[in-house]
Amino acid sequence: MILYYAPFTCAVAAHIALEEAGADYEARRIDFSKTEQRSEDYLKVNPKGRVPALVTDRGIITELPAILAYIAQTFPAAKLAPVDDFFEFARVQAFNNYLCATVHVAHAHKLRGSRWTDDPAAIESLKAKVPETMSECFALIENEMFTGPWVMGEDYSICDIYLFTLCQWLNFDDVDINIFPKVADHNRRMLQNPSVQKVLAAHAT
Amino acid sequence: MILYYAPFTCAVAAHIALEEAGADYEARRIDFSKTEQRSEDYLKVNPKGRVPALVTDRGIITELPAILAYIAQTFPAAKLAPVDDFFEFARVQAFNNYLCATVHVAHAHKLRGSRWTDDPAAIESLKAKVPETMSECFALIENEMFTGPWVMGEDYSICDIYLFTLCQWLNFDDVDINIFPKVADHNRRMLQNPSVQKVLAAHAT
Repeated sequence: MILYYAPFTCAVAAHIALEEAGADYEARRIDFSKTEQRSEDYLKVNPKGRVPALVTDRGIITELPAILAYIAQTFPAAKLAPVDDFFEFARVQAFNNYLCATVHVAHAHKLRGSRWTDDPAAIESLKAKVPETMSECFALIENEMFTGPWVMGEDYSICDIYLFTLCQWLNFDDVDINIFPKVADHNRRMLQNPSVQKVLAAHAT
Repeated sequence: MILYYAPFTCAVAAHIALEEAGADYEARRIDFSKTEQRSEDYLKVNPKGRVPALVTDRGIITELPAILAYIAQTFPAAKLAPVDDFFEFARVQAFNNYLCATVHVAHAHKLRGSRWTDDPAAIESLKAKVPETMSECFALIENEMFTGPWVMGEDYSICDIYLFTLCQWLNFDDVDINIFPKVADHNRRMLQNPSVQKVLAAHAT
């Protein structure tokens, strides 16, 4: 498999999941500073011009929640999701979906406001609200969604990997992770995971 | 099961899927005009204050892509997704994820701009760009994603249900569906589906 990623984007989560699964894969970097995600070659991989994209022997999978579920289903021994319990799997998917469609979207208004408006003043106003929207999202995660010790309860899952990935954006978004004690403790534990350390080091290189 | 919905929101898709699955369920309406989605009672169902939410005998599932995948997995005879082929299932999930995190989000900037900015002028500028962003999304669906005759190819799936649901918003978003011939034809075929007709009638009442 080939994972297309850009450093410290949400592709970090796919990268960690592949490590945790023990998958045989190559990680290929896309350089956003050169807008490689919009290059003719990359648009053949993902016409949406986004990362991550996972090339498998059957074809290409895009969208992080779909990639994470796929890795969990195809590497069941890694126990990255309760793939045989449809209700518990739905809970995992609902959490990841919230991260994708609400939390990631809230964060995107910091640097990607031009997706939704052409007005420079409006773009500034979108940026200004990001600390508030991200804080609201993480308050909901802390108070309503985080079961403990892991996101879903006793079992570590792709939800932990995804949550950790978005936590790395909080500092940039002017949100203090320590306001959310369960999330902050989770982040500290995740940082001790060798797969996480390996991926962060690769992205920092 | 109980499906909490608001008329003509994305909950339409969950509602159609339950019909197609032949599920035994009750549909319970949440009145957005009375902000019932923020009532104490509803926040106990879904602390996010959104629809849809599906109450099962095991607990509550939120987030439309997770609900659709759950219905497909738990009613395999309805053949609403290739649940036993992990790659094909990932393709289905990737499409639905795009609808949720990009298309629905683009549309949300028409009426829900206050989620991302407090500035009235910025909210107006977000509204103004919606026809352009929604058109871009649907051009990508038409040209890159829609396999035909159904979204995923020969087999009808939860992708068709979800795409149809978002197509109902195009007119409001000042986008002419007929610019996208495959999508427009799909929409016409979906409108002939008895489950679709039943749900649209229920939402219109």
